[in-house]
Amino acid sequence: MQAKTSRRGEQTRERILDAAEQVFAEKDYSAARLEDVAQAVGIKRASIVYYYAGKQELYDAVEERIFTAMSSHTQGTQRPGENAINQLLDLLDGWLDFLVARPTAARILLRTSSNSYSDSRAPIRNSAGALTAWEEIIRRGQASGEFAEASPMHLLHLLGAGFIYYTATAQLLGDERNYDPANPVELEAFRTLMHRSAKALLTP
Amino acid sequence: MQAKTSRRGEQTRERILDAAEQVFAEKDYSAARLEDVAQAVGIKRASIVYYYAGKQELYDAVEERIFTAMSSHTQGTQRPGENAINQLLDLLDGWLDFLVARPTAARILLRTSSNSYSDSRAPIRNSAGALTAWEEIIRRGQASGEFAEASPMHLLHLLGAGFIYYTATAQLLGDERNYDPANPVELEAFRTLMHRSAKALLTP
Repeated sequence: MQAKTSRRGEQTRERILDAAEQVFAEKDYSAARLEDVAQAVGIKRASIVYYYAGKQELYDAVEERIFTAMSSHTQGTQRPGENAINQLLDLLDGWLDFLVARPTAARILLRTSSNSYSDSRAPIRNSAGALTAWEEIIRRGQASGEFAEASPMHLLHLLGAGFIYYTATAQLLGDERNYDPANPVELEAFRTLMHRSAKALLTP
Repeated sequence: MQAKTSRRGEQTRERILDAAEQVFAEKDYSAARLEDVAQAVGIKRASIVYYYAGKQELYDAVEERIFTAMSSHTQGTQRPGENAINQLLDLLDGWLDFLVARPTAARILLRTSSNSYSDSRAPIRNSAGALTAWEEIIRRGQASGEFAEASPMHLLHLLGAGFIYYTATAQLLGDERNYDPANPVELEAFRTLMHRSAKALLTP
């Protein structure tokens, strides 16, 4: 009975996070309301508070879930024996494909990057795993001489910000410039450019 | 007397926009209040409404002023007789230097890019001049064969998003990764990478 209850609780928690990801992707933090999330799930506001003490805790959980899912996704694409540039391209491809398949996540990452919604330390904690994975490949490539010296964060801005913008702003450019980021032709064209930039930035 | 009054009105308007840019850079759209702006200027909320009908109008005016200032700044750096790659690097440098000198603008551009605050068409209208300036150089370079074929918007994501992130997220990466984007050594290192990426992306 206990197991059944907690399984049901886990399902409710997931449904809350699904709904919250939609709400936080659509509205800014201050405009998003727990009532909106409760209504989308079909439960009462008080039931959310049973799982998450408040909006900040819920937002942080949504963000954490996005980074965890992104990390699981890219771990599946990593090839341990590869040279550093191919590992880096695999990681970039994994992140890009993850965001294209989950546009709400791209929007929320952009929101996190402007960090306007709170003084919470959660964004730094939640993003640390992704930043560390990135840095480890760069440092390894630099140590072996395969990569040129450069700040891993500068490199991340020039490559990582690009795929977040590719995904999150595709419909915000105006009618004559908008595109579908999931269109395979569009996506492969962008990927080719991203790879070209990565190789140019990292080759000594 | 009329001229004096309107000059004073113009000064008040500028002070309102200055204060609003600070407020909108710090808080998300829904959290920002006209009262905060009024208090910073030292006037009553009703006095703001005399200039701007509401928060949306004020936000749009702040955004428009940023794009206008950015455009004026880069027009001063453009060299009409230059080849396309140098014109493009001049434009990128101008944008980068503008944002480094005005961090509130970088934060607001990031906010605009996630467009979570409204259904307003203002962001598309306000950014159109910058996007057009970018496209014109790319198209000219592509027409002459100096540049490889590629989507101007894809190129903008890989170069423009980079300098927005370089400026806006420098203090959001965690203590051991944070940096000062205005530090000349840091800035020149990033600029060198940005140029390298631009050349690699655009050279046929």
